[in-house]
Amino acid sequence: MKRIADSTVRRLSVYLRFLEGSSQRGLPTISSEELAAHGGTTSAQVRKDLSFFGSFGKRGLGYSVPELTSSLRDILGLGRAWKVAIVGAGKIGIALAQYDGFRSRGFHVVAVYDSDERKVGTRWDGMTVRHLSSMAADMAEYEPEIAVLAVPAEAAQEVAMGVVDAGFKAILNFAPTQLHVPPEVSVRSVNLALELEGLSYELSNRSR
Amino acid sequence: MKRIADSTVRRLSVYLRFLEGSSQRGLPTISSEELAAHGGTTSAQVRKDLSFFGSFGKRGLGYSVPELTSSLRDILGLGRAWKVAIVGAGKIGIALAQYDGFRSRGFHVVAVYDSDERKVGTRWDGMTVRHLSSMAADMAEYEPEIAVLAVPAEAAQEVAMGVVDAGFKAILNFAPTQLHVPPEVSVRSVNLALELEGLSYELSNRSR
Repeated sequence: MKRIADSTVRRLSVYLRFLEGSSQRGLPTISSEELAAHGGTTSAQVRKDLSFFGSFGKRGLGYSVPELTSSLRDILGLGRAWKVAIVGAGKIGIALAQYDGFRSRGFHVVAVYDSDERKVGTRWDGMTVRHLSSMAADMAEYEPEIAVLAVPAEAAQEVAMGVVDAGFKAILNFAPTQLHVPPEVSVRSVNLALELEGLSYELSNRSR
Repeated sequence: MKRIADSTVRRLSVYLRFLEGSSQRGLPTISSEELAAHGGTTSAQVRKDLSFFGSFGKRGLGYSVPELTSSLRDILGLGRAWKVAIVGAGKIGIALAQYDGFRSRGFHVVAVYDSDERKVGTRWDGMTVRHLSSMAADMAEYEPEIAVLAVPAEAAQEVAMGVVDAGFKAILNFAPTQLHVPPEVSVRSVNLALELEGLSYELSNRSR
């Protein structure tokens, strides 16, 4: 399959959210203009994004909301549940372990890990924090697929290699550092301070 | 000043992190190739990104680490502290209020707000959760500049308008929805479930 840009995949998620809202309101069809307005893009871009995955909609009639919703869910791999392990039981890790927004999209946190003996054994939302060293052995039991890394920057690369060795094929990285992993492992990064720096940049350059 | 793309600003933040690491290790100069390797881009892109802001470095000698570090900090508005208000004292909001990664970059959380009476008055890290209705009146006392929105999707637009009315000029949005705000207000969005969907997309399409 052709390599699709991350930005395209991100827009598919945004379209899907809008479609789900339209579906709840009982709308039968939607135009590329409406999807574009919600996704902050153009209708030409909407048509191009969807064209990678097949032929959707009819000229002049728009897209069927139930059909496109179902197709996008399938394309994004949301037709099933995914098992997630949180690595790092600090403030951010624990908040993520309890985050309803994950579960409601089919991402189920099945394990929380830390290497700090003071955190191992503590309980959060019915889950006991487990020691990082037991991760590889746990894989057979829990079969997690996505690792969420919420560890300090200086530990992130080493922890990432442990996660890869344990067999994870996807990492959501919250540590403010670039991870180097084998090409078969997918990584997405969320850098909270970096987003704030984007705002401080804009505030500074407005007031100049 | 010319409008600079968000992606450029994001790369400046990444370069700055690498420069700060180089500075700690006492390196006097750095090449655009080294910055590029760390930022996941090309040396031509590094030179282009920096060229928007002035003339840096010398051909064949690279960039002075202390000078470029200082310039990037200035460009990104990090030469000063910024006051941040967290709006929404749920799990994510409270984790963000206590997140060390903000403070260490000069972003100081000065207030936490919620509209839920059960949360108002509770204390976190020395801060008392305040009622959302007091935000406008608080502005004179706290003078916060950046609002971090950690509220449910269905409440986000209304809360955002309240934040704008109170005088904030920048919003970091964690709600999984597109905010509509006046053009003079800067918005960055972090959508955690959407990043996980990018991973489920990749996992699904690898195994096909």
